[in-house]
Amino acid sequence: MSKLVIVGTVAFDAIETPFGKTDKILGGAGTFIGLAASNFNIDSTVVSIVGGDFPKDYLDIMSNRNIDVSGIEIVEDGKTFFWSGKYHNDMNSRDTLVTELNVLEHFNPIVPESYKDAEVVMLGNLHPSVQMSVLNQMHKTPKLVVLDTMNFWMDCALDDLVKTIKHVDVITINDEEARQLSGEYSLVVAARKIHEMGPKYVVIKKGEHGALLFHDDNVFYAPALPLEEVFDPTGAGDTFAGGFTGYLAKTGDYSFENMKTAVIYGSTLASFCVEKFGTERMLNLTDKEIYKRLDQFKSLTQFDIELT
Amino acid sequence: MSKLVIVGTVAFDAIETPFGKTDKILGGAGTFIGLAASNFNIDSTVVSIVGGDFPKDYLDIMSNRNIDVSGIEIVEDGKTFFWSGKYHNDMNSRDTLVTELNVLEHFNPIVPESYKDAEVVMLGNLHPSVQMSVLNQMHKTPKLVVLDTMNFWMDCALDDLVKTIKHVDVITINDEEARQLSGEYSLVVAARKIHEMGPKYVVIKKGEHGALLFHDDNVFYAPALPLEEVFDPTGAGDTFAGGFTGYLAKTGDYSFENMKTAVIYGSTLASFCVEKFGTERMLNLTDKEIYKRLDQFKSLTQFDIELT
Repeated sequence: MSKLVIVGTVAFDAIETPFGKTDKILGGAGTFIGLAASNFNIDSTVVSIVGGDFPKDYLDIMSNRNIDVSGIEIVEDGKTFFWSGKYHNDMNSRDTLVTELNVLEHFNPIVPESYKDAEVVMLGNLHPSVQMSVLNQMHKTPKLVVLDTMNFWMDCALDDLVKTIKHVDVITINDEEARQLSGEYSLVVAARKIHEMGPKYVVIKKGEHGALLFHDDNVFYAPALPLEEVFDPTGAGDTFAGGFTGYLAKTGDYSFENMKTAVIYGSTLASFCVEKFGTERMLNLTDKEIYKRLDQFKSLTQFDIELT
Repeated sequence: MSKLVIVGTVAFDAIETPFGKTDKILGGAGTFIGLAASNFNIDSTVVSIVGGDFPKDYLDIMSNRNIDVSGIEIVEDGKTFFWSGKYHNDMNSRDTLVTELNVLEHFNPIVPESYKDAEVVMLGNLHPSVQMSVLNQMHKTPKLVVLDTMNFWMDCALDDLVKTIKHVDVITINDEEARQLSGEYSLVVAARKIHEMGPKYVVIKKGEHGALLFHDDNVFYAPALPLEEVFDPTGAGDTFAGGFTGYLAKTGDYSFENMKTAVIYGSTLASFCVEKFGTERMLNLTDKEIYKRLDQFKSLTQFDIELT
């Protein structure tokens, strides 16, 4: 079992979907990644920043799941990062209603001393130079660095992003972002070009269409579980990344074969995340439910074929 | 091994893609379905209609692949159905430039006498009452009826479509069509509603995102093989249907388990179809190539997971 460092936002979200709306609830990439990874009972820390308005209860939620929160800086006279969004009827697109960076504007992540020798680092979606500063604090090169990013940084901080992903083993992005970063429409060609930029493994998230894992000439396709109802997609991508990284940290096996299983774990956890608002479903999830759904993934994709 | 009746257009296509354009070449749903199914060396017939302008060479292409063409009516003083389309840069959308129905306008399919006892019937995309007239000619209820259709008939001939699919075992449609036919956004709920309309099996084609097979509470997801380049998508859906149905006719096993394998065969053949213009790739396809790609599908989707 490896130690895991997670950097990412810890935030308030207010979400509106066709099914209803929430007040300010617990959100943020670091939160979703941490909660997903905590299902593997690993030794993890979330490095982040919040304001004095952030309830201690929310920190306790993480601590109670064995997540070290000493790396979450509390700015007593500051306000926590706040995001509000409204999903359209198809749940595949959304409008951002409010983005208040607040304390996030001056976020200078500090990795707790006891985690600077961690084998695995998960860089949640943040400015690429902030992601890089976490890597620079590590005492030795981690065995696995996973980076999540988005089109916003490709538009505004491409040079920094290109520098940072040189030091990354796995990048997770969605299909449109893979196309933007590579300038290629074919995802096969896009993945190859992104390989050349640094990451040996490229995970392309396609939402309801699943996820692709590329490594050299190998490719693995994990479908998303077809769901009756997607209640709230917020955090699904981060939950995927947390499940993926958490499983790899637990097993300490960073081979392509094991990453296939990690992708399935990530997809499985993400399929729960979307069933309720925010983190609600992730906070009420049993191992038994996870195993049952992993079994559904097996039925969903496994087939017999005899090649004569 | 079961006899297979295919009804569908045999046509001229003129295709323009970002990679080039063709003159009038061999096309039509019946053609693509027939060619795909012929890979299984089954006893099949294509029921269709062409004009006096249709080259005998094209009929020979089918005959040479053991496809019975006696059900293709030749209207000597008529012209063959002609379709022309232009694909956009993303290859996922296209504009129809020309549709000349010609002899297709008065198509009255006649199933050859020796095929009226066929176990398997594949109804290619046509007016649903034309599809129904084929079923009415069968001497006994086929063991498997597969129907392909499209949004056009949902717009213009919904009542006929609803009548026809009552007699169908498997319907193949794309995701948008499944949503239109059912009035439901979730594909899981859409499939359930379509079940209630008749078909026990619902295949939802999602193009580059693969295909879903639904039966009662069971679901199977076959991804599409990620391709470096999609050269021409024309006929991919029909090739999928032909591979799916051909495999089932060959094995005579219409269980859900065997349909999973059939979906993989369909996806495999469709992945070849898009590599060249029109039928070109399908006419130059070896068993060895097919087996190799089936093996790629296995690597693409199979994973090990131990549930503890």
